[in-house]
Amino acid sequence: MITIHHLGVSQSDRIVWLMEELGLPYELKWYNRKEDRLAPDEYLALHPAATAPIIQDGDLMLAESAAIVEYICHRYADGKFTVCPDQPNYAEYLYWMHFNNNILGLFFAKSALRAQAHGPDADRIGGLIKRREEGYYRYLEQRLGASPYLAGPEFTCADVMVIFDLTSLPLFGGRTIKDLPNAQSYVQRIGERPAYMKAMKIAGPTAVPPTA
Amino acid sequence: MITIHHLGVSQSDRIVWLMEELGLPYELKWYNRKEDRLAPDEYLALHPAATAPIIQDGDLMLAESAAIVEYICHRYADGKFTVCPDQPNYAEYLYWMHFNNNILGLFFAKSALRAQAHGPDADRIGGLIKRREEGYYRYLEQRLGASPYLAGPEFTCADVMVIFDLTSLPLFGGRTIKDLPNAQSYVQRIGERPAYMKAMKIAGPTAVPPTA
Repeated sequence: MITIHHLGVSQSDRIVWLMEELGLPYELKWYNRKEDRLAPDEYLALHPAATAPIIQDGDLMLAESAAIVEYICHRYADGKFTVCPDQPNYAEYLYWMHFNNNILGLFFAKSALRAQAHGPDADRIGGLIKRREEGYYRYLEQRLGASPYLAGPEFTCADVMVIFDLTSLPLFGGRTIKDLPNAQSYVQRIGERPAYMKAMKIAGPTAVPPTA
Repeated sequence: MITIHHLGVSQSDRIVWLMEELGLPYELKWYNRKEDRLAPDEYLALHPAATAPIIQDGDLMLAESAAIVEYICHRYADGKFTVCPDQPNYAEYLYWMHFNNNILGLFFAKSALRAQAHGPDADRIGGLIKRREEGYYRYLEQRLGASPYLAGPEFTCADVMVIFDLTSLPLFGGRTIKDLPNAQSYVQRIGERPAYMKAMKIAGPTAVPPTA
């Protein structure tokens, strides 16, 4: 059985969500953040890169959301929620599987800039970050005007990957989607999925950690 | 035939490299950066997200390196340089396909921080960025001590994805690999591949753009 090493208020809630969507059993191991909001030492000891989420499957310790969701769907669910190379929306699927890490990078960069950066260098990097962010969200809004889900007509792992950016990142100062009506209805539609609601109750940003 | 919209001194050199590795024909369309080192307007007009690289395949305009390399290998090379779900190193392959975007995000964040950030917030985000960076490179060095290529015994798209971070990003102030001997021999080994040498001559960071 797969163990989800869940860092509280982190991207690992999407793995809980995926398992609920697939109806697969899993063990949830919860780690609370420290006072400084960073991961505790026992979490850091799990994997050399020590990013959240991390799953354990036998001897395998696997980090990186997008790797984890593809791994689980292909190894345990016959490729459900993935798109194959011979399907017409394969390129779209691939693209959106990488959106999350791009947005996270910009999020870190913006947080860094907000930390009192001034001067011509700050303006230059700030301008670059702004333009990239505008581009990504412009494409997102456009795509969701043309398609109910990111990869096409069906719900896929690409949706599992991106929702966090639209719902949780704004809680930490990330870009909101207030000005993006297509993205808003998309978030609402996803939010009505029973597996999503269940997973967020178990492991979402406002979930209550189990008492030790 | 695939058109590579190549922004000078950018990640799109890896698509040229992949095409050379696969021996596939392609058209290279070169775009010079402006004086401010940003992409020119005609490049930005190609795609809503407007990141480099972008390829064109018939009606399809596809951005995002990792999406592009998987797309090309599966659609035009029977999956060469990719790893299938039933192969033992599938999880490793997936992991390393996402390394690049993580590193790029940190690169932006560090650049932002360097732009005169000070104070407790800057220290906090700076500490977080440092720890993530250390984790990623620790894992990289460890992996390359255990395996000749990132996904395992064979050269794959994961290698095509990551080399840029080790060779080109340091040219712009990114982390060097001076302290990582395994990463250094890996870069040297990859650097000896004829297709890589050819591609860098055509489109690498020091390549000379064709005269218009």
